[in-house]
Formats: sequence, structure tokens, C-alpha cells
Amino acid sequence: MSNKNNKITSRSEDYSQWYLDIIKAADLAEVSPVKGAMVIKPYGYAIWENIKNILDKKIKDTGHKNMYFPLLIPKSFFNKEASHVEGFAKECAVVTHYRLKNDKEGNIVVDENAKLEEELIIRPTSETIINDSFSRWIGSWRDLPVLINQWANVMRWEMRTRPFLRTSEFLWQEGHTCHASKAEAEKEAKKMLKGYIDLAEKKLAMSVVAGQKSESEKFAGALHTYTIEAMMQDGKALQSATSHNLGQNFAKAFGTKFLDKDNNSQYVWQTSWGMSTRIIGGLIMTHSDDKGLILPPEIAPIKVVVIPIMKEKEDNSEVLNFIKKLKLGFKEVEFDTRENLSPGAKHYEWEKKGVPIRLELGPREVKDNSVVLVRRDKDSKEVVSADNLAGKIKDHFQDMQSQLYKNALEFRNNKTKEVDTWDDFVKEIKNNNFVLAHWDGTSETEDKIKAETKATIRCLPFGQKKEKGICVYSQKPSKQRVLFGKAY
Amino acid sequence: MSNKNNKITSRSEDYSQWYLDIIKAADLAEVSPVKGAMVIKPYGYAIWENIKNILDKKIKDTGHKNMYFPLLIPKSFFNKEASHVEGFAKECAVVTHYRLKNDKEGNIVVDENAKLEEELIIRPTSETIINDSFSRWIGSWRDLPVLINQWANVMRWEMRTRPFLRTSEFLWQEGHTCHASKAEAEKEAKKMLKGYIDLAEKKLAMSVVAGQKSESEKFAGALHTYTIEAMMQDGKALQSATSHNLGQNFAKAFGTKFLDKDNNSQYVWQTSWGMSTRIIGGLIMTHSDDKGLILPPEIAPIKVVVIPIMKEKEDNSEVLNFIKKLKLGFKEVEFDTRENLSPGAKHYEWEKKGVPIRLELGPREVKDNSVVLVRRDKDSKEVVSADNLAGKIKDHFQDMQSQLYKNALEFRNNKTKEVDTWDDFVKEIKNNNFVLAHWDGTSETEDKIKAETKATIRCLPFGQKKEKGICVYSQKPSKQRVLFGKAY
Repeated sequence: MSNKNNKITSRSEDYSQWYLDIIKAADLAEVSPVKGAMVIKPYGYAIWENIKNILDKKIKDTGHKNMYFPLLIPKSFFNKEASHVEGFAKECAVVTHYRLKNDKEGNIVVDENAKLEEELIIRPTSETIINDSFSRWIGSWRDLPVLINQWANVMRWEMRTRPFLRTSEFLWQEGHTCHASKAEAEKEAKKMLKGYIDLAEKKLAMSVVAGQKSESEKFAGALHTYTIEAMMQDGKALQSATSHNLGQNFAKAFGTKFLDKDNNSQYVWQTSWGMSTRIIGGLIMTHSDDKGLILPPEIAPIKVVVIPIMKEKEDNSEVLNFIKKLKLGFKEVEFDTRENLSPGAKHYEWEKKGVPIRLELGPREVKDNSVVLVRRDKDSKEVVSADNLAGKIKDHFQDMQSQLYKNALEFRNNKTKEVDTWDDFVKEIKNNNFVLAHWDGTSETEDKIKAETKATIRCLPFGQKKEKGICVYSQKPSKQRVLFGKAY
Repeated sequence: MSNKNNKITSRSEDYSQWYLDIIKAADLAEVSPVKGAMVIKPYGYAIWENIKNILDKKIKDTGHKNMYFPLLIPKSFFNKEASHVEGFAKECAVVTHYRLKNDKEGNIVVDENAKLEEELIIRPTSETIINDSFSRWIGSWRDLPVLINQWANVMRWEMRTRPFLRTSEFLWQEGHTCHASKAEAEKEAKKMLKGYIDLAEKKLAMSVVAGQKSESEKFAGALHTYTIEAMMQDGKALQSATSHNLGQNFAKAFGTKFLDKDNNSQYVWQTSWGMSTRIIGGLIMTHSDDKGLILPPEIAPIKVVVIPIMKEKEDNSEVLNFIKKLKLGFKEVEFDTRENLSPGAKHYEWEKKGVPIRLELGPREVKDNSVVLVRRDKDSKEVVSADNLAGKIKDHFQDMQSQLYKNALEFRNNKTKEVDTWDDFVKEIKNNNFVLAHWDGTSETEDKIKAETKATIRCLPFGQKKEKGICVYSQKPSKQRVLFGKAY
């Protein structure tokens, strides 16, 4: 199952191919025989499990409970919320039959007698089927808030796919909550976005811009959508997670009501929020280099690889005993004692897999009670006494984690330009930068800018100072700068 | 979201209704608007998470890695393994289209222009799509064994469904492995069954009979299927997990080959093994009583509930402060301080939810530095000093865990009959017992027995002594007794 001799195209030569090569060389995923789907391989899935564990704890610590809703949603549910059907019901997998049979030649064919009365849709997201339950569960203000989450696979039929970034089927969590007031729903939507920001910055060492989506870019059915946008090394934006204040839109469509303290019947206020396997694409494209994947220590499935320098057909027991006794201070260690591979080959394999720290040692190091420590994000080698190893590794982890974050932050800052003229806008977008520019607030202008430059409004950043200005495209008045960029 | 006043039908009155009532009263799951699917509610899902965590650790500790394969499988894959298609391809959800559109009246309808060239099947199990990958991954004996697992949803279209026990969509893990020899695959299949036995007996306190399935009852495509069969309180068997030695059947169908050490090309030997949300149905029906759910401490999401006896419109701070200081020794505790419910109502609610230990205390207990401890599986109340509480609870947990297992074991032993005549066979099956009887080893006899009595061969139990006998039905020679029972 190992990938040997996987050449990695350099970023400057072909960025798209570099991304695919990294995934192959690190053995994270592969294309599946089903168009648009992928197989997530063990090393890629281990990264997802780490993300999932951190996020699951955050979700539970903030009072949410996990549950599970059906995969298949009756077609009619999508008809109930007008903007939701526009956004989601169109490109989706439709189940029409529930049986196959053998034809006369012995091939299996769809049994036309087993046609469903109403077609079922593989969930692209679960607001509709969850509201169907919510409408039955909620009676009074005492039942609120309802705070739930599910880990699930979802499907959105895609014609052009890329592993992790855009696949027909993907894995995610989707949180869904109901509240007694608009203010409480708004607070919840922002709180959960904050959780995503923390995960992205502190664990994934990604630097993100948090803000609100424009009307055209918001979730189909939401009042407001909040987002975190990361910049990839090609300057494109990756929407990394979103949190929606759904207002009462789905509640009205499904009749999700409660009796308030004054015994008045009211629709609940809702939120939903999600992060998916897409984030792994963002993680890859934030940190990796032309030699392969780079993983921040906080998220790496293997934090340290130990490579003993062994000699073929000789007694290597001294080195092998030495590595067994190394005190590293944690358990995510791989001891690469394979005999059929040279230390050099091992070195390249683990480099491609982005393991944060590599330890190498042979008879000389054993004699000196030392190891050679190499950090994945630096070229320098360091000789470390075996007695101080755990402390040294801990220090390097902290330094590497914060350095990777700083790099990402600086990269984005350097490639984010404030512009005031249309010429500069076009130039900076062409240079694959983020652009902060004034916008007149209309979808019309947004559409025209997209048509001419492929740039979309990534968000109205939080904390962006309110300043009057002139729209960079229409010259009409603007209240604040918004963030533009080309996006995945 | 709480279920109030849920009456529970007694087992003697209507066992099937009792099962449904328990699920409703404990708020474990509910029927969904999609026929045959269910919504797993937070308390039910928390039980599944506990099972999942234990099993996931077992699977990883034995060297397996998690990964993820696509939900949708091309129809043609099912054609490749002849017996597999017979067993699985028939009753399944078929995706035929990938787009919806608005018709002239504005309703959404299937877009006939978006018909798939080849239909896709929602996985009923993943041997076929996984072998498609295995055939590309495996080249040499150095790549073996391949030991993987996935946690996923699967779908088998069912006409008659019951929550947890039989639903169209269910959650499970499916392990898939490849080995260089038949012996190694056999060892693996048995090892993973052992893991299921441990989980069932030590954590779920269920008593199971382990053994081999007959040819008619084995997995479609397997060489041998191993199973664990539990007895429910109505005397019916529940197949609780299975492990398959797949031989080379799928390897041959998909061309999954390796070069052995002598450079000969050989098909790999495979296993697969799974446990699903069905086990929750087994857990419910093993332990629960007419008052509600009973959960073994090892698997209970809430191990202890603390109910302070409070007085309306009075200062209850003394009692509330006292419970905060209780030292219980673990974190799965619910402090039920709701003010709108009487202690009695709380008592019944938690009883229905099967929480192993209930602690009650009011001003009198605070004065005595004590609490009243009630075990869910016993009627007696015990006054315990607050100083010894953690130790007392631990002892009760151990005792309750082993007592529940002993009850299940004794119940099954008492209801397992060795019979030698057809009259006795019919009588004992009618009495809802398990029957150990001689069988001539033919599917023909097996089918006839099933047609006449509804009893199936649950398994050829491991460790059953080899003794020559006469088939209870055909009077032909038999080599050993096998286990018959009616089954879910």
C-alpha cells in the first residue's frame, strides 16, 4: 500500500498538478471508479479523525448532542423552502427504484416494478429532514434551545471534482439548533464560527479571514451566512467552514413552532453550521512545499518518525534496543525498522508524508547517547542528547506550530491589497491576490465583477473599519471595503 | 425534547409493543418520514458512540486502520461475484439520475436528461468497491496483510422494519482484510469474532453463542461465516455480529492478486466482519424490564443521576451545594436540578432511561452526610455515607455489570434444550426456546425445518462436542448438534 517513487511537480511549474502529486505521494486519497467520489486512504482518514476529535469535543463542550438523521430525503421536502430548492435540489443524486432483477441474459437490471412513489434525494445537507423532526419535538419554550449535531456523508453532484476540495460525496459535521429569539440564534451562529476559527488557527495553523457572506454567496435558505476564508499558496481563497443564522425560514416552511412564556405561538429561530473533509485540502495547500506534505504537529497522525541507521546482514540490535528506550513524551511515533529500505528512501517517504520531526540515529549516535533531529519545515539538522529529547521535541512542536501559523498569516497579509481603482483591482486579482475594495452593496455589481475577473466577494470581514468610499466598479457610494478573491 | 407520560406495555401483554414503548420512553430513536429509516436521537446515539469507541479501539489495537470508501457502487460491480449478487443486489436503493428541475407548474421533478449511464447502488456492504481498490493497491507479498476498517452507513431495502433491529439504513463498521494464506485469513476472521464476543459479554453484558453459520445462512460470497447469537427475552435469537472468511471469492472476481515470495502470482485470501446499530436492539431486549430500559454501567451514557429533593419556592441552596461536593469518581453524571418537576417524575424518567444508579437526597440526608442509593436492576434502597460514595458506586457497578451478564447467561441456558425427537423439537421451538439438535447437514432439511417451524440454524456452536447422532427431522446420520431458534 505504500507509494514509491512518486514524483512531485513543483508549485511554480504546475500548481494544480502539485496538489494532486502531494496527495498521491503522501498516500492521502485516490480517485474512485465512481465519478466525483474519492477513497480516503488510512493516512488521509487519520488526519480527518484528528480534526473530528477536536471538533467533536468543542461541539459537545458547548452543550450540543450528536444524533443521526436519515440519508435519504423525500423530494417534496425540498419544495418547502423556496430559496433552498434553488440552491440545493438541482444537482443531486436521485433514488428512483428499490430493487434490481436479472434480465433474460442474466445481467442485473433495474426492476421497473420497484419504482418509488416519491423519489428520494441523497442529502446534500439536512435542514429539511431535521426540521421535519424539530416540528414534532418542539412544543414550548421549555424545549428550547435544541442543540444538535451530526457527523455524516452528504452528496452534491459535481461535474468538475478535485480530491478533498470538491467531491460529490464528502464527510462533514452539520450542527442544527433552535432558539427562542433571533438574538440567541445570532449569538449561536457566531459562537460556532469562533470554534471553527480556533480549530483552523490553533490546530491546523491556518490563517483565516472571518466575515459575513454577501447576499448572493450566502447559504440557500439562510438569513446570514458567516464564513472563514483561508488563502491557498496560489492566492486563491478556500471557504473553510460556514455558520448560518437561518432566521425563521425553515421553521416557517416546516411549521417548527413553540409556545412562548406568554403562551403565544412563535416560529423558532435556527442556525446550522458545518465543516467538511474539504478542510484537508486547505491544510495541504496552506503548508506543503515542493518536497511533499507538511503537517502541523497538533494535527499530524504521526508526530515523529524514528529512523535507525541499520546495516544489511549485520547485527543491528544495539541501535534497535536504543530506539526502544527513547523517551519521547507521546505516543504518535513511528519506528521505521523496515529492513528492505535504505535510510534515504525512508527519509523521503516520511518527508512526503509531512511528519513534523524525523529522528535518525546509527551506531555513532548510540555511542554518544544522541540522535539527529530534523524538522520537516526546516533544512537544518540538530544533534540532541537522548536525555533531553522529550523536552526538545516539545519545544520544536510549539515553535513549528506557531511558525507555520505565522507563515500562513504573513503570506496572506502580503498578498492582500487595498485598492481604489478598477485598474488596480483587475491587476491585483490577476496577480492572484486578495483585494480589499469598496463595493456598492448590489448583487448586480458583484455579478459583473465576477464575470469580468472571476473574483467573488469572499466575505464582508468582521472588524473591517466602516469608512465611506466609492465602489471600485460602479463608482456608487460604499460603506466599507469587502474582501474579493478568486476561489476554489 | 423529553418524553413525558410514556406508558410502557408489559412484556407479557405484548412483547413487540413493549420493545417499541421502551425505545419511545427512553427517547432512543423515532420513526422517520422515509419508510424504513429511523432518526437516532441523542440518548440512543450516545449509546452507539460508546459502543463505537470501545470497538474502534479494539480494531486499531489489532493493527487495523480506518479509511473511507464511496457510498455509491456501480451496478456492474455486483455482477462480478455470483453469489454476492444473489444475496445483496436485489433489495437495494438505486440512483438513476443526478439532477432535478422545475416543471411548468413550478414543482420539482426528475430531469430525464440527467440519467446516469450506469446506475449506482447505495452500498449494502462494501466488499465489491473495496476489492476494486485492493486490486490496484496490492502487488507483492510485502503489501500484505492489508488490514482496514470503515465506519459507515449502509442500506438494504426492507419492507418490514423495526427500530435498530431492521432498518433500511443502518450504521456499522465493516472490516476488510487481505492475507497471503488461507490459514492467516481464517485466524483473522476468528480473532475479530473474539473481539465482538468480548464487547458483547464484558461491556454489553450480553450472553452470546459463537459458532459457524450453515451454508444457507452464510454471507453471500463467503467461504465461512462466523456469528455471535444472543437470546432475547422472548426467546428469539439476534445475530449480533458476523465475521467472514471470504476465501478467494472476491479476489477472483476483482483480480486481487499478489506475487508471493517465490514470484508466483496468487489471489489474496480475505475476510470481512461487521457490527451494526442493530446491537442496540439486542442490548435493549437483553436487559430491560416492564419499567423501562436497563443499561449496563460499562455502556451507559449516564452512569449516575443525582436527584436533589427540593421544595418549591424555598431556599434549596443547602441541598444544591451538597450535591456539588459529592465525590463520585467519574464524569458521566447527570444532576437533575430541574425545578418544574417533582422528584417522583424525575425518578420515573431516569428509570425509563435505564441509568444504572440513582442517588436521591434532601435536607435530612444533607444533615446526615448521606445519600439514598437505588440501583436500576434492584428494588432496594440503600443509605450510603457521602464519604464512601465513590467506592460504593464502583462496587455496585461491578456487581451490576456481572449480575446482568449472569442473568442473560442463565436465561439463555434455561431456555436452551437438547432434543432428540421431532415432537420435542416442535414443542420447544413453539415454547420459544433455543434447541440443540442433530441435523443431517443438508440445506434441504434446513429449509423444511424452517418451513414447518420458522426455526433456522443459528449456528454450529464452537466447542460443541462431536457426537454421532440421528437427524431430528430426516433421521439420517449427523455428526454434531447444531443450534436452532426463531430469529429476528
